[in-house]
Amino acid sequence: MKNSAEATQRIRRTPYTSRVDAAGVSSYSVYNHMLLPTVFKSVEADYEHLVNFVQVWDVSCQRQVELQGVDAARLAQLITPRDLSKTAALQGKYAPLCDERGAVMNDPIIIKLAEQRWWLSIADADIKLWVKGLAYGLGLSVKVFEPDVWPLAVQGPLAEQLMERVFGSVIREIKFFRGASLPFRGKEMLVMRSGWSKQGGFEIYLNDFALGEPLWDELFHRGEDLQVRAGCPNQIERIESGLLSYGADMNESNNPFECGLGQYVDLEADVESMSLPALRQLAGRQERELTAIAFPEEIDLSKSELVENGQIVGRVTAQAWSPKYKEFIVYAMMETVRLEASSEVVINGLEGRFVPLVRKA
Amino acid sequence: MKNSAEATQRIRRTPYTSRVDAAGVSSYSVYNHMLLPTVFKSVEADYEHLVNFVQVWDVSCQRQVELQGVDAARLAQLITPRDLSKTAALQGKYAPLCDERGAVMNDPIIIKLAEQRWWLSIADADIKLWVKGLAYGLGLSVKVFEPDVWPLAVQGPLAEQLMERVFGSVIREIKFFRGASLPFRGKEMLVMRSGWSKQGGFEIYLNDFALGEPLWDELFHRGEDLQVRAGCPNQIERIESGLLSYGADMNESNNPFECGLGQYVDLEADVESMSLPALRQLAGRQERELTAIAFPEEIDLSKSELVENGQIVGRVTAQAWSPKYKEFIVYAMMETVRLEASSEVVINGLEGRFVPLVRKA
Repeated sequence: MKNSAEATQRIRRTPYTSRVDAAGVSSYSVYNHMLLPTVFKSVEADYEHLVNFVQVWDVSCQRQVELQGVDAARLAQLITPRDLSKTAALQGKYAPLCDERGAVMNDPIIIKLAEQRWWLSIADADIKLWVKGLAYGLGLSVKVFEPDVWPLAVQGPLAEQLMERVFGSVIREIKFFRGASLPFRGKEMLVMRSGWSKQGGFEIYLNDFALGEPLWDELFHRGEDLQVRAGCPNQIERIESGLLSYGADMNESNNPFECGLGQYVDLEADVESMSLPALRQLAGRQERELTAIAFPEEIDLSKSELVENGQIVGRVTAQAWSPKYKEFIVYAMMETVRLEASSEVVINGLEGRFVPLVRKA
Repeated sequence: MKNSAEATQRIRRTPYTSRVDAAGVSSYSVYNHMLLPTVFKSVEADYEHLVNFVQVWDVSCQRQVELQGVDAARLAQLITPRDLSKTAALQGKYAPLCDERGAVMNDPIIIKLAEQRWWLSIADADIKLWVKGLAYGLGLSVKVFEPDVWPLAVQGPLAEQLMERVFGSVIREIKFFRGASLPFRGKEMLVMRSGWSKQGGFEIYLNDFALGEPLWDELFHRGEDLQVRAGCPNQIERIESGLLSYGADMNESNNPFECGLGQYVDLEADVESMSLPALRQLAGRQERELTAIAFPEEIDLSKSELVENGQIVGRVTAQAWSPKYKEFIVYAMMETVRLEASSEVVINGLEGRFVPLVRKA
């Protein structure tokens, strides 16, 4: 989509859409039935600014699925193989959601607001429907709904400085993936140190549509000398940083071990999770794995198969030029047997090498 | 979206995308995580052609949710208040899906392929997730999945003629909302007399990606003298015809009585449906109703509320200029009390009148 005018009742605008338009967005995508800005100046220019300054992102489409009631905690645990038993109030945990076969249904941040109130801060799929179906079928005492909450992310190395100017010094005390309930114009809302980049930053879970423009304007007013700009999740940055995109890098045909999410599967945990029995069987047996491959040149993406010596050895899920590593980085779901054979690969006559999704600095 | 190049792994291309591009599509939307063409020449020109000739529509995004197993029929019935007990094999029934509160979750065509094999041919929402959750929670013996099927619609007054040339005279024997399993290039696929227009036509449930371009090409080759063109669901035609768009005209905040879908709620049926108990309570008590309003001029859609004498009396869901009735038709969810008061309405100083969603010819 080139502009927000193409939004309809079916594809929703956000509290910030008028400001995103005014900031010169050049393209939107659709995510969870909502507008998601994808480019402002260019993916490259947006990246350069993000890694040096601070950006404000309209990520309203990162919808919340709220579980509320006496069975809320039980239901949250049931849908993920990650142990949630020690989650503190206002703590978020990145966690795959998995079904009874161990398939990855989504990869939200699960946020505990209170013992009987949890949010799934979701990637692109109507997870509310799955959770609603489970709750009804299992006869659980829990309300499942999408609250009126529109996250605004503030990302980049100067994010903390800007957030402090708007919300006060309490911002510095918020640890990674922890939140605080902070007032803006008299209204309390969740503010968490999180976001879909590795440049540092926060997400403000705006809970009043009418405060969207004032919040946006305040961030821009206070951040003028920090060169604050409108931005959005950036394909280059997320690939350099090893962040996964559900629906692109992985989907329901994958289990978490294939996606490098094994560290979020607590195989030994004594918790009631619908996927753990299946995942205990699948652990260590994956026949394919998501990995990154570094190439000196761009790979043709018109065909997603990676072919080496006439054999399909993997399937590309994403690609970007990395200014940091000075090479193209391709994400691919690779045959495990190929990964184990050699760290070099030759695709379309191009020599590449496997690199970790997340590299040490 | 202006072009299919913006498709990603997350927003899927279809077997016909290259042909849709070549046919000069001018805009795409995203529907069920897939590309949906929305305009070719212009909404008006596309309409004029549709009501006079025959068009081929890429409606691959009308995904199928397949229920397969001994509990398939039971599950299909559970999620809709429409009585499915007398559904014949290869018969489709338009039916609201409703949850335990009677909320409309979707409005698919439910197709019975066989006693233990049903399809939900869905509108824009991940209904598979809801049905999967229900099946697991209730411990039903049924597999729920999205099969590899990409519907192609052939719509317009000359559709039958064109379809007969490709599939043979058996086409004429297919009754409305009935199907037949017919071969194309040796592969059997479901062909049904149906489609999201009231100009007559068929939907071909293509089940082999590789046959997408050959099928498209064959329809264009055989239909040259019928002036066949690429088209897509048309906003003018669907509004003139009283067809509803889930996510726009109605959503989970509505019950079927509010949406004019009462005729598909079998209150007296002796079937196991999760919504019927709630719907029996709600019947005849709706406080708002979807209706059409005819205006001589266009209504400003920047605000969706319809205000009359300072009072909000309804909310606009869609609008189009009708070449057939020579007036603007607005779809609105109106307060029942307002609807009952008078058939005239004055909005923004414009005099309008309530008209039936579906008018008699």
